[in-house]
Amino acid sequence: MEALDYHAEERRKAEFDVEEMKIVWAGSRQAYEISDRVARLVASDPVFRKDNRTMLSRKDLFKDTLRKAAHAWKRIIELRLSEEEASKLRFFVDQPVFTDLHWGMFIPAIKGQGNEEQQQKWLPMAYKMQIIGCYAQTELGHGSNVQGLETTATFDPETDEFVIHSPTLTSSKWWPGGLGKVSTHALVYARLITDGQDHGVHGFIVQLRSLDDHLPLPGITVGDIGMKFGSGAYNSMDNGVLRFDHVRIPRDQMLMGVSQVTREGKFMQSDVPRQLVYGTMVYVRQKIVADASCALSRAVCIATRYSAVRRQFGSHNGGPETQVIDYKTQQSRLFPLLASAYAFRFVGEWLKWLYTDVTRRLEANDFSTLPEVHACTAGLKSVTTSATADAIEECRKLCGGHGYLSSSGLPELFAVYVPACTYEGDNVVLLLQVSRFLMKTVSQLGSGKKPVGTIAYMGRSEHLLQCRCEVERAEDWLKPNVILEAFEARAARMSVTCAKNLNNFPNQEEGFAQLATDLAEAAVAHVQLIIVSKFIEKLHQDIPGKGVKRQLEILFNVYALSLLHKHLGDFVTSGCITPKQGALANEQLRLLYSQVRPNAIALVDAFNYTDHYLGSVLGRYDGNVYPKLYEEAWKDPLNETVVPDGYHDYIRPILKHHIRVARL
Amino acid sequence: MEALDYHAEERRKAEFDVEEMKIVWAGSRQAYEISDRVARLVASDPVFRKDNRTMLSRKDLFKDTLRKAAHAWKRIIELRLSEEEASKLRFFVDQPVFTDLHWGMFIPAIKGQGNEEQQQKWLPMAYKMQIIGCYAQTELGHGSNVQGLETTATFDPETDEFVIHSPTLTSSKWWPGGLGKVSTHALVYARLITDGQDHGVHGFIVQLRSLDDHLPLPGITVGDIGMKFGSGAYNSMDNGVLRFDHVRIPRDQMLMGVSQVTREGKFMQSDVPRQLVYGTMVYVRQKIVADASCALSRAVCIATRYSAVRRQFGSHNGGPETQVIDYKTQQSRLFPLLASAYAFRFVGEWLKWLYTDVTRRLEANDFSTLPEVHACTAGLKSVTTSATADAIEECRKLCGGHGYLSSSGLPELFAVYVPACTYEGDNVVLLLQVSRFLMKTVSQLGSGKKPVGTIAYMGRSEHLLQCRCEVERAEDWLKPNVILEAFEARAARMSVTCAKNLNNFPNQEEGFAQLATDLAEAAVAHVQLIIVSKFIEKLHQDIPGKGVKRQLEILFNVYALSLLHKHLGDFVTSGCITPKQGALANEQLRLLYSQVRPNAIALVDAFNYTDHYLGSVLGRYDGNVYPKLYEEAWKDPLNETVVPDGYHDYIRPILKHHIRVARL
Repeated sequence: MEALDYHAEERRKAEFDVEEMKIVWAGSRQAYEISDRVARLVASDPVFRKDNRTMLSRKDLFKDTLRKAAHAWKRIIELRLSEEEASKLRFFVDQPVFTDLHWGMFIPAIKGQGNEEQQQKWLPMAYKMQIIGCYAQTELGHGSNVQGLETTATFDPETDEFVIHSPTLTSSKWWPGGLGKVSTHALVYARLITDGQDHGVHGFIVQLRSLDDHLPLPGITVGDIGMKFGSGAYNSMDNGVLRFDHVRIPRDQMLMGVSQVTREGKFMQSDVPRQLVYGTMVYVRQKIVADASCALSRAVCIATRYSAVRRQFGSHNGGPETQVIDYKTQQSRLFPLLASAYAFRFVGEWLKWLYTDVTRRLEANDFSTLPEVHACTAGLKSVTTSATADAIEECRKLCGGHGYLSSSGLPELFAVYVPACTYEGDNVVLLLQVSRFLMKTVSQLGSGKKPVGTIAYMGRSEHLLQCRCEVERAEDWLKPNVILEAFEARAARMSVTCAKNLNNFPNQEEGFAQLATDLAEAAVAHVQLIIVSKFIEKLHQDIPGKGVKRQLEILFNVYALSLLHKHLGDFVTSGCITPKQGALANEQLRLLYSQVRPNAIALVDAFNYTDHYLGSVLGRYDGNVYPKLYEEAWKDPLNETVVPDGYHDYIRPILKHHIRVARL
Repeated sequence: MEALDYHAEERRKAEFDVEEMKIVWAGSRQAYEISDRVARLVASDPVFRKDNRTMLSRKDLFKDTLRKAAHAWKRIIELRLSEEEASKLRFFVDQPVFTDLHWGMFIPAIKGQGNEEQQQKWLPMAYKMQIIGCYAQTELGHGSNVQGLETTATFDPETDEFVIHSPTLTSSKWWPGGLGKVSTHALVYARLITDGQDHGVHGFIVQLRSLDDHLPLPGITVGDIGMKFGSGAYNSMDNGVLRFDHVRIPRDQMLMGVSQVTREGKFMQSDVPRQLVYGTMVYVRQKIVADASCALSRAVCIATRYSAVRRQFGSHNGGPETQVIDYKTQQSRLFPLLASAYAFRFVGEWLKWLYTDVTRRLEANDFSTLPEVHACTAGLKSVTTSATADAIEECRKLCGGHGYLSSSGLPELFAVYVPACTYEGDNVVLLLQVSRFLMKTVSQLGSGKKPVGTIAYMGRSEHLLQCRCEVERAEDWLKPNVILEAFEARAARMSVTCAKNLNNFPNQEEGFAQLATDLAEAAVAHVQLIIVSKFIEKLHQDIPGKGVKRQLEILFNVYALSLLHKHLGDFVTSGCITPKQGALANEQLRLLYSQVRPNAIALVDAFNYTDHYLGSVLGRYDGNVYPKLYEEAWKDPLNETVVPDGYHDYIRPILKHHIRVARL
């Protein structure tokens, strides 16, 4: 008997080979195979079940998470998984937990900022999880402004120790994941003070809890900071608060890879260039962009599949109603998000390459590309995470009322995703950093210094400031070079306009403050151009299968033209395109949606997500939505009894109390 | 000793009398006084505390909600509250519960659709809460398409009964609030079938549970549909599922105000016009718009107050850092939302008048304004709820990392608010209804039929299609008539363009399908014009105090010009304004933000929300944020023990297991 598949007909419609697209999405056959194998491993293990997650109380959820983390560690060891496989396994377990920080921040920071000796001492313990570490930077009063952190690490030359202290309430460490209840150690960022002098913020390894009984060590106050957005979601993580009352650590627990304090208390900058830390930053942001494409593609997969199941209106002569995915209003909201998922995937892939490139350069003491790389990664982090957060909620709305149920998976996906807009650099702050780089580039245009990499187009600004878009018919908008030039012209013109307007202010800083909103918009234009251009580069790569290539071309056009429509004001007021050309782009977009439609289900199948990972009744592979929604409902704790707890105390008295209502 | 007030300095800056503004916000002195009194009553009652709400398990939350509902009812009776006061009290308790549906849907529907006799029988029981009712319309398979409901009510002339039945899984009633665990009765919408003939959807009063022991009656399967978005939020409500297996009810439990079935089984339309039901619809939507301004103003109040507390960057010589509310990027995101809260408030107030007007007309058999009123209320429901949902999340982001904590109040506000975009008409479906009305109006322009009310401007379309905006300097954008004409021209031109493009399609319906997105955008333009014009009307009303009037003028300009900036593409491509004029609007907007700044705290104080109702540590009236955040954190259940539950089973074994890591 064939397995039930309500989407079978949709899958037959696809005009490309979905297996080929899976490999394109994964990046390589090998990546696809690892991912596929580990995903199935997790999905088939009952310990990793997560369908009941949103119903658990905070304590039960937390305990369940600890259990999963321990089981994941056990499986990683038993199966002798490689580092990549282990990381994939944690990824597919899909529940925020202390190990995310241990592996993702604590270990990389020791690698990046510790000296040889420190790495040899701490890394083996960390790799074997004989200690568990977190990353304690953010404070109650300071997030974005890292240089404003208040925690102090004062060197005491008498004992050769640092005294770690929280001088104010606002200096309490606040937010670090894994800190609240689990970590035995923390990488604490504090102001280094030697001999009364403040040397700015540095990292220190501080033991927090006894390895014997897990109790906090003397002088340490530590706990969880409480519930966060959503049910399930990040409440599985023990984001924590931490205060120090003159806690002493040996001198060699300051991370000394870049700066040192000598036995005599002398502060020294190492000859290792400070820029090396940028490598880690590029790595972290590259991962965030990859995560954005994951979260977005999950949401899009759910909304697309459900849009093919859900029917509403349009029944003729008692026949079935119209699938909501056939409505243009649904398509014009959904398909640009589907295209964005692919766009973010490809730009994320390119960022991986960029990370390798910048690492290689740094090792060769070549810091020339750093400002451009910094602007590019900051901007991509900001634009992709903001777009993804909005898109998840849009996908939820595209599922109508049922998207509001936890069993749709979308509320939790949203709640667990949104902090990405704030952590590792607030998205607005990052855009302003990008805009500073743009303004600097514009100001140096006459100097003969040629802009490189993602900003190279500014070198052609003379052309871009006066070029005219040559679109005459809707199909002209299908040409990648036409689109690219329009995006380049828009980005260049917005930057140049900002630069001109800055000159109207008596001083630069006042100008930056007053024009901040315009500057942020110019930064967005620059970043969207990067994503568009990397998508084009992808189209030029060796793509297996004509069908697959055709789909990517369509998605590219959908991505670019829907952005153009959304930011029509930018393109038209800067004179890059005419209103008429804007209308033609819109017309072309409609035609493109019709081309996406028959391939939509296959295009989300290509993400190769298991039903376990998706965690959505609406997004089930087989489309068997309604019976499963019905079945899920009965699992709610409220349905354990027919008559609810509280009936005798609070409902029956109302019904039986024969009041004489005076005024109602 | 003076009470602690970190915002005192901010409050002194205000250039208007906040007490006067409170009355403007409330609508009248009387409304203000009732609201103020009831809010304090609720805030001071320990039973109504809600600071622990997000930490409760589903069952505990539900029981806590029942307790509050019973206590609210007790207080309403004890204090002999009027209907208005009772409704305010439930409003300030601020926790979704079955009584919302009982008072808000069940009773009004019996009033609106029952005949005299039915009202006399059922209303007194309902008023005294001897029965508890809900409104069972939506089904698992049908939401927006009410005419597609599948539940049947078949008349059996032998017994003079209707047989209520759920013929399919998708016909299960799904979503009704209060249904899952509490309601004794439901107003069930089902297809009326007499003698094999289907007469469409009608309402039936069906008893669900025994009044003795609360058990479901024979043939009835009923339960809760499970967890929804967020912690706390709508999980206090027992949204339910309901199936009927040939349940019999007497014939007189069909609501017979509009249609009847006789003893012989003959179906009859009453001579009461069907349009009467539109009155209820206007009432419900009017309430939704009022709720939007409430939810939005809460979020804005929290974000504004916290933005004045939070400081980041910009410290000079060790002085305090800059308040984030002083950053233009913060202002350009926050102040348009503050202005929107006022704009929605005023348009909501006008809708109350519209409801009285339409009721009066209906009673006089004047149905002439119905299409316009329908379009206007549908559009306002859609635009204000979508904007509010987005705005709450934006306010959360404006609070940085701490906005992600439940104690900020914003995650729960978002989760509890977003269904407003879907219920009582999906927002996109509603916009398409508006656009149909717009297209009809355009097509009748030549016919001599003069458009009235909110669509009257279309009567001047000849002028609007060719008028030119006369703005030459930034300050020209302060004139209400200049703004009004720009919004009228934009709305008229977008509608006319859509109408023209529709003509390119072989048939009207195909055109509507293909151009749906453009049509929805034209509808938004029309609705935004309504809000702008009602704000202008408000400015012309008798406003106490020059200071207050000045603030409202500034907020009006902020609202209109920020919309213009957001939809610049519309205004420029339709030729309503030039790119240069768009830039001038932007320039003016920046100046306006500086004028809002010193008044920002007082403008949110004018909402007169108690700390209890706001439910946000970040939004506290006294601004004492950090100590309270710290204090709140320790209340989390995870902090009940120092060593977390699960340590011995899942953490210690990891730390103590001296593995030999093979491949890591």
